[in-house]
Amino acid sequence: MSQVSRVVLAYSGGLDTSVILKWLQDHYGCEVVTFTADLGQGEELDPAREKALAAGVKPEHIFIEDLREEFVRDYVYPMIRANALYEGLYLLGTAIARPLIAKRQIEIAHEVGADAVAHGATGKGNDQVRFELGYYGLDPDIRVIAPWREWDLTSRTKLIEYAEANGLSVPKDKRGEAPFSTDANLLHTSSEGKVLEDPWEETPDYVYSRTNDPESAPDTPEYITLGFGSGDANSLNGEAMSPATLLAKLNELGRTHGIGRLDLVENRFVGMKSRGMYETPGGTILLAAHRGIEQLTLDRGAAHLKDELMPRYAELIYNGFWFSPEREMMQAAIDKSQENVSGTVRLKLYKGRADVVGRKTDRKFNLYSQDVVTFEEDAGRYDQRDAQGFIRLNALRLRLLGERNRAETDE
Amino acid sequence: MSQVSRVVLAYSGGLDTSVILKWLQDHYGCEVVTFTADLGQGEELDPAREKALAAGVKPEHIFIEDLREEFVRDYVYPMIRANALYEGLYLLGTAIARPLIAKRQIEIAHEVGADAVAHGATGKGNDQVRFELGYYGLDPDIRVIAPWREWDLTSRTKLIEYAEANGLSVPKDKRGEAPFSTDANLLHTSSEGKVLEDPWEETPDYVYSRTNDPESAPDTPEYITLGFGSGDANSLNGEAMSPATLLAKLNELGRTHGIGRLDLVENRFVGMKSRGMYETPGGTILLAAHRGIEQLTLDRGAAHLKDELMPRYAELIYNGFWFSPEREMMQAAIDKSQENVSGTVRLKLYKGRADVVGRKTDRKFNLYSQDVVTFEEDAGRYDQRDAQGFIRLNALRLRLLGERNRAETDE
Amino acid sequence: MSQVSRVVLAYSGGLDTSVILKWLQDHYGCEVVTFTADLGQGEELDPAREKALAAGVKPEHIFIEDLREEFVRDYVYPMIRANALYEGLYLLGTAIARPLIAKRQIEIAHEVGADAVAHGATGKGNDQVRFELGYYGLDPDIRVIAPWREWDLTSRTKLIEYAEANGLSVPKDKRGEAPFSTDANLLHTSSEGKVLEDPWEETPDYVYSRTNDPESAPDTPEYITLGFGSGDANSLNGEAMSPATLLAKLNELGRTHGIGRLDLVENRFVGMKSRGMYETPGGTILLAAHRGIEQLTLDRGAAHLKDELMPRYAELIYNGFWFSPEREMMQAAIDKSQENVSGTVRLKLYKGRADVVGRKTDRKFNLYSQDVVTFEEDAGRYDQRDAQGFIRLNALRLRLLGERNRAETDE
Amino acid sequence: MSQVSRVVLAYSGGLDTSVILKWLQDHYGCEVVTFTADLGQGEELDPAREKALAAGVKPEHIFIEDLREEFVRDYVYPMIRANALYEGLYLLGTAIARPLIAKRQIEIAHEVGADAVAHGATGKGNDQVRFELGYYGLDPDIRVIAPWREWDLTSRTKLIEYAEANGLSVPKDKRGEAPFSTDANLLHTSSEGKVLEDPWEETPDYVYSRTNDPESAPDTPEYITLGFGSGDANSLNGEAMSPATLLAKLNELGRTHGIGRLDLVENRFVGMKSRGMYETPGGTILLAAHRGIEQLTLDRGAAHLKDELMPRYAELIYNGFWFSPEREMMQAAIDKSQENVSGTVRLKLYKGRADVVGRKTDRKFNLYSQDVVTFEEDAGRYDQRDAQGFIRLNALRLRLLGERNRAETDE
Repeated sequence: MSQVSRVVLAYSGGLDTSVILKWLQDHYGCEVVTFTADLGQGEELDPAREKALAAGVKPEHIFIEDLREEFVRDYVYPMIRANALYEGLYLLGTAIARPLIAKRQIEIAHEVGADAVAHGATGKGNDQVRFELGYYGLDPDIRVIAPWREWDLTSRTKLIEYAEANGLSVPKDKRGEAPFSTDANLLHTSSEGKVLEDPWEETPDYVYSRTNDPESAPDTPEYITLGFGSGDANSLNGEAMSPATLLAKLNELGRTHGIGRLDLVENRFVGMKSRGMYETPGGTILLAAHRGIEQLTLDRGAAHLKDELMPRYAELIYNGFWFSPEREMMQAAIDKSQENVSGTVRLKLYKGRADVVGRKTDRKFNLYSQDVVTFEEDAGRYDQRDAQGFIRLNALRLRLLGERNRAETDE
Repeated sequence: MSQVSRVVLAYSGGLDTSVILKWLQDHYGCEVVTFTADLGQGEELDPAREKALAAGVKPEHIFIEDLREEFVRDYVYPMIRANALYEGLYLLGTAIARPLIAKRQIEIAHEVGADAVAHGATGKGNDQVRFELGYYGLDPDIRVIAPWREWDLTSRTKLIEYAEANGLSVPKDKRGEAPFSTDANLLHTSSEGKVLEDPWEETPDYVYSRTNDPESAPDTPEYITLGFGSGDANSLNGEAMSPATLLAKLNELGRTHGIGRLDLVENRFVGMKSRGMYETPGGTILLAAHRGIEQLTLDRGAAHLKDELMPRYAELIYNGFWFSPEREMMQAAIDKSQENVSGTVRLKLYKGRADVVGRKTDRKFNLYSQDVVTFEEDAGRYDQRDAQGFIRLNALRLRLLGERNRAETDE
Repeated sequence: MSQVSRVVLAYSGGLDTSVILKWLQDHYGCEVVTFTADLGQGEELDPAREKALAAGVKPEHIFIEDLREEFVRDYVYPMIRANALYEGLYLLGTAIARPLIAKRQIEIAHEVGADAVAHGATGKGNDQVRFELGYYGLDPDIRVIAPWREWDLTSRTKLIEYAEANGLSVPKDKRGEAPFSTDANLLHTSSEGKVLEDPWEETPDYVYSRTNDPESAPDTPEYITLGFGSGDANSLNGEAMSPATLLAKLNELGRTHGIGRLDLVENRFVGMKSRGMYETPGGTILLAAHRGIEQLTLDRGAAHLKDELMPRYAELIYNGFWFSPEREMMQAAIDKSQENVSGTVRLKLYKGRADVVGRKTDRKFNLYSQDVVTFEEDAGRYDQRDAQGFIRLNALRLRLLGERNRAETDE
Repeated sequence: MSQVSRVVLAYSGGLDTSVILKWLQDHYGCEVVTFTADLGQGEELDPAREKALAAGVKPEHIFIEDLREEFVRDYVYPMIRANALYEGLYLLGTAIARPLIAKRQIEIAHEVGADAVAHGATGKGNDQVRFELGYYGLDPDIRVIAPWREWDLTSRTKLIEYAEANGLSVPKDKRGEAPFSTDANLLHTSSEGKVLEDPWEETPDYVYSRTNDPESAPDTPEYITLGFGSGDANSLNGEAMSPATLLAKLNELGRTHGIGRLDLVENRFVGMKSRGMYETPGGTILLAAHRGIEQLTLDRGAAHLKDELMPRYAELIYNGFWFSPEREMMQAAIDKSQENVSGTVRLKLYKGRADVVGRKTDRKFNLYSQDVVTFEEDAGRYDQRDAQGFIRLNALRLRLLGERNRAETDE
C-alpha cells in the first residue's frame, strides 16, 4: 500500500468523523484536511472548526462552506424536474447530496495538493458507493480511504473505546447504542437501522424529527401557491425566493402539516433490502406542485417519455451515478422538456397531505384548452367525426389479429 | 351505409342510453339488445329491465349481469400487480372497466346473432376508443355505432327535447345542465366537465360522492391488515375474501377516512388535455399495500423492471389497448414477477392517507434479511471488503472518462 | 367546406403531381403554388418549372430549391447519431425527408400568403401522416388538402384519362400499370407495391436502381476511411467534405459494391403490414462507421441508454413525429452523448458488405485502454481482486433469492 | 479461509484447466471433480477423461456430457426469439454458454457432495462474472474458487513453468505466447487479446477458424428455406431437425459462405472496453431468418415492445444475469409474443451475407394482408377517409403546441 501524505476528509465534527480524523492521522501518518458542508442539515458548523483545530488540523486546512443554494439549485431542482422517485416512493434526499460533497472534496484536494480523500460511510450502505463513484469520476487517480471498510473498530463499543483512549469527547447519548442512524440535509432526514430493522414494527414516533405527527397537525388546512419558471419553483405565495430559501420555507410548512413521512423497505445498490424512514417535508410539496404545473404546460409525448425515463434516472441517482454520461443525457432530455413548464400551482396542506387543487399559467405556456375539451359547442376546434378514423386506424392491426385468431379457431 | 338488423347496446337505463335506444330503433330501424352490467357502480339495475321492456326490447334480449367478481379478479387485480398509475397519479378506474363491457357486448352479439354494437360515449373522450378497440379486436367485422358522433342531438337541450318528444321520462335534475359528468364502478368514480373545466378552481365539495372530506373524517386513525397471495389481496384483517368483496370493504374504509381523492389535468388519447376528479378509495389502499408487500418479497431486478414498464402499461390501458399483444406481453412479465409476492401488510388509514406501517411474510417468500442488513455483527453474511471491489469496477468506466476529460483539458 | 384561395403543393413535375395541380385548380378554383425540392433524388428539376408554367402557375409562385445540404446536415446526420433503425433494419430514408418538405411548404405558404398546403401521398401510406403532422405542428390552422383521399380518381386508368382529358403529357411507360411505386432522395430509394406485394417472391433485379447486384460487384474489396467529429462524418479518405457531398460519395461507393439493399415487411403507422425494398448505399456505410467510432469513444452507460432509446426514436421518425417534443428530448440526449464521438474508421467494402475493420482516435476522445485490457501485465491499472467483490455484491440479491427458493423447496 | 474438501472444476482438458486442476489439488489439498461439457466446441472430449484420470481424479468424479441439444434448445433459441444483439451487433455466443455450464457444475456439486466450484476464467473478463452469478444464484452458499484471481501464476511463462514442474504435457504451440485467446461452442467462436488489441489493425485472416473468407467463398449464391414454429427454427430445406442438428447444419452453410464474422470493440461488464472477433455463422443466419418470419406474423405492438426490451435483455445475458428474475420476466413477455411466429423463410447466402428474400406462412399465423395493403381496389378492407381523422387526432396535441409557440412569438 502506497504512502498517503494528505487526505481530505468529509468531516461533520461528530463522534464518528472525529474518530476517523484521528485514525487517519495515526494509521496513515498523514495530514488531514477537513471539509464540512452546510447542506441545511440544521446543525451548527462552528464546533467543527474548533474540533478540527483541537485535532491538530491546520487552520488553512479547515474548509467549512455553505452549499445550500448550490445544493438546491444544481442538484435538488434538476431531480424535481424529472419527478424522480426511487422505487415509486423515495425522493432521494440522501443520494442527491453525496455528489456535491464528493465534488467539493476533490476540488479541495486539488487546491491543497492532497493525494487522498476519505469519508465516513459504512461498508454496507449506498453512500460509500455514491461518494466514491463521485471521487473516481472527477479524479481517476485519487486515492480513496474508507475507514469503516479498513479498520478494526467493528463495533460501537470499540469506537468509543478508541475515542476515549485518544481523548476525544464522547457525547453522553452516544455511549449507549443509538436507536437508529440518521442523515439530514435541506431536502430530507433519513433514519435506518436498529429499532427500524423489523419491517413489521411501526416506526416509533420519536424517530421523526422534521415533521409533526399528522394527528397533532393543525385541524385547518392551509392553502399556498407556488410559482414555477422553466420547471423550477421560484416563488411562494407570490413572493420570489431563491431555491434554498424557498425549500426552507416549504420545509417549515411541511413540518407544520406533517407532510412527507415515508416508511420504506428499499433495495440497496449493494444487493440487500433495508428498511428506512424518510422525512421530506418541503420536497414532497415541491414534487406534487411540479407535477401540477406540468399538467397544464407539458405535452403528452414529453410527459410520457419523462415518466418512462424516470425510474432509470432515479436509479442512477440512488446508485451514485450522478456524474455519469447517461445521467447527463437524461438530464439534457428532461431539461429540454421543461422550457415552458411555467405558471402557478395552488396546494392544500392538511394532515400529511399536499394536494394540488388548482393550476394556471400564461397563454404562452398553456397547453390546456377549455375551448377544445368542453362538452359545450367548441366552435369547430374539434371535429368529433375525426374520432372514427382515429379509432379505425388504431384498430386496424387489432382487427387483423382478430381475423387471424378466427382463422386459428376455424381449424 | 349498409343495413343494421340487430344491435347490442351498452345500456345503463339512464337518460342518455334511453335516448340512444330509441334513436337506434328509429334511425337504423333495427332491433336493439340491451346489455347492463353491474360493475359495482352502486345503482339498482332492475329499473333498466323495465325501461328496456317499455322501449320494446324483447325479454330475451335484455341482458343484466353481475360482473363484479370478474371485473376485480381479471381486470383490476392484474393492473394492481403492475402498480399501474397513469401520468404518475391516476388509477385508471374508468379505463379498466371498458374492455370487460366490450367483451361481453361482443359475446352477446354472437349469442343473439347481432350484427352491430353501440355505446354511449362521446366523440371527444377516451371511452369511445376503449370500447371500440375492444370491439374490433374481438370481432374484426363487427359494425360499431357511436350515436354521439353520428346524430344531430348536439346539445343537452336537443337531447331532452328528443326524449320528451319520444315519451321518455326525463329526471327533473337532468333538465338543467348537469354540473359535471360522472362514471362509476367498484374501483372508482370519475367526474369531469362543466364546473371542473377551469383547472385553477378547486373542485367543489359536492362533486365528491364516494369519500368523506378528509377534514370531516375520523380524528382517530384506523389500522388494518391486508393479506396477499401471488400479488393479489385475498384477506382483510385476517378474514379471507373474494376480490370484489374485499374491494367493496376497502371502499367503505376509504370512504370513511377520505382516501383516494385526485384532482388531475390529464392527457387524453385523442390529443387534448382535460381536467377530472377521481375517487378511488379502496384502490388507493390496495395500491399502497401492494407496493408494501412487494418491498419484502420482490427482487430488485424485477422491481425496477416493473417500474420501468409501468408507465407504458398504464398508457396502454388508458388508451384502450387492454386486448393487445403488447399489454398481454407486459402482463406475462408482470405476473411472472408476482409468484412470491405474498404476505401481510399493515396500514394506517387517517384523513386521506393510507400509509404502510408494517409488512411481514413467510420465510419462503421473504427477501429481506435482518441478518445481512444489520449494523450489528452479521455473522459473515456480508463482507464489507467486497464493497471496495464492487465500487472500483463500477467506477472503472468513470475513471476512464475522467482520464479522457483530463486529456482534453490538457490541450 | 370553406374556400381555399391559394395552396402550396409539394410538386415533383411527374404525372401524379401534375394531375393534382390541375385538379386543385379545377376542384378548388384556387391558385396553386408549386414547391419542388432537390433532396438528391437524382432527377432534373428544370422540367418541373416548365410544366408548372405551362399549367398556369405564376413564375413567382414556382419554388425550386436545392435542400441537399440542409437535408443531410439537419435530418440525416442527427438520425445517424442515434443509430436509428426501424424494426431493426430500415434506415428511414423516406420518413426523414418528409419533415423538411413539410417545413418548407409551410414557410412558403406564409411567404406567399397561402391558406392551404397539398401533397401527393396516398391514403394508405405513412407519408400522408408525416407530411400532415409536420404541417399541423408548424401551423396549427393550416388547411391540408390530400387529393388521393378526396378525389374520385381511384385507379391509374382514371388518373390517366383525367390527365389526357386535361392535356397533360403522359409518359409512355406510365400507360401500363407501373410495376411498383418508388421514392428517392440522397439517402435512399424505396420501392413498394405491385410486383413486391407477395412477400414470398424475391424482389426482381429490375426493381433495384441505386446499387449493383452484389454478384456483379467488384471481386476485389475496397478500403476507405471515414473521419468523424462529434458524431458526424466529415471526411472521406482524409479529405474534408460537406455532409451532402460526403453522402453522395458514399452512395457512389455503395452503388459500386452493392451495399445497402433491404427487403422488408414492415408495420405501417396506419395499421397494416407492407412489403418494401430499400436501397440505402451511403447510409448503410455511414451507420456501420458511426457504430465503429462510438465503440472507441462512447461510454458504456451512454451507449446502452442510446440503444434502449433508439427503437422509440426510430418509431417516432417513422410515424412522422419529427417535430414533436419527445423527438426533440431524445435528440437532446443523443446529441449530448456525441460530443466526443470523434476519430477515424476504416471500412472494407465488398459485395454488399460494409465492415468496420479498424478505428482510431485522439487521446482526448479515446475510452479504449490497451493498458487496462491487456492480458499482459497492466502496471496496476486494474486489480483482478476487485472482481471478487464486484461479483459478490452483484450476486448478493441472487443469493438471497436462492435462499428463498431453498426455503420454498424445503417445505 | 475455510477448508475446501471437494471442488467441481469446469475442465476442458487443455493446458490452463490442467494446471488449475493440479493447483487446486496442491493449493487447497482437495479432491477435484472434473466437468467437461460438449457444447459443440468441436473438440474431442475423450482426452479430457484420460488427462483427468492421469491427474488422479477418481473415475466416478469425471463428468463428460453432451449438452448440445439442451444448449441450443434452452439457451440459444430463447435468445434468438428476442433477436438479442449486444451493443447492436454481437450475438452473445460466449455469454449464453456460461449459465448452462454453471448450472451443471452446481448440480454435480450437489450429486457428489462437493463444497466448492472452480472455473478457469480470468479476473479481467466477463466470464468470471457469468460463471459466478450462475453459481451463487443456484446455490447461495457454494464456495467459489477463481484461480486466476488467486494464484501467483501471473504470466504465461510462469504457467508453463508450473505445468512442466508438475509433469503436465505442454503442447508445442503453447510455449510461445499464443497470438490470441479463443472460446468456442455450437453458436460461435470468439477471439480476443494479443494481436487483436490494437483496434485500428484489421483482424488477421489466421484468426478466423469457423468461416471462409468471403472473398474465397463460392461465387454463386445458395438459397435455403428455414421453417419456424412458435419462434423456433425447426426445419431446413423442408427437413425437420432438432435444434442442435439444425444449428450445426447452418454452421456448415455459414462457414461455406463466409457468414457471421464480426470485428467489435465492446464494453465489458467489468468496466473496460475490449476488442474481439466473433464468428457466428449459423446464428447469424438464424437471427436474420427469425426477423423475417416475425415480419409476417408478429403484431406491430408486440414487435416494437420486443425491440425496446431487447437491448436490456441482451445486456442481462452479456453481464451474466441469465438466472435472474428480470431476465425471466422479459423471457415470459418475449415467449408470449412468439406463439404464432410460425412459417417459412427463404434466404440467400452469398459471400458473407444472409439475406431474407421471401417469407410465407399459414392463414392462421399470418398478419400480412395483401388485400388491405394493395394499391389496387381493396374491396372495402380499408377506408382511406379514415386516415384524415387518424391524422387530425394524432396532430391535435402538436397543433396545441403550435398555437402556444405562436403565442410565445407574438409577445
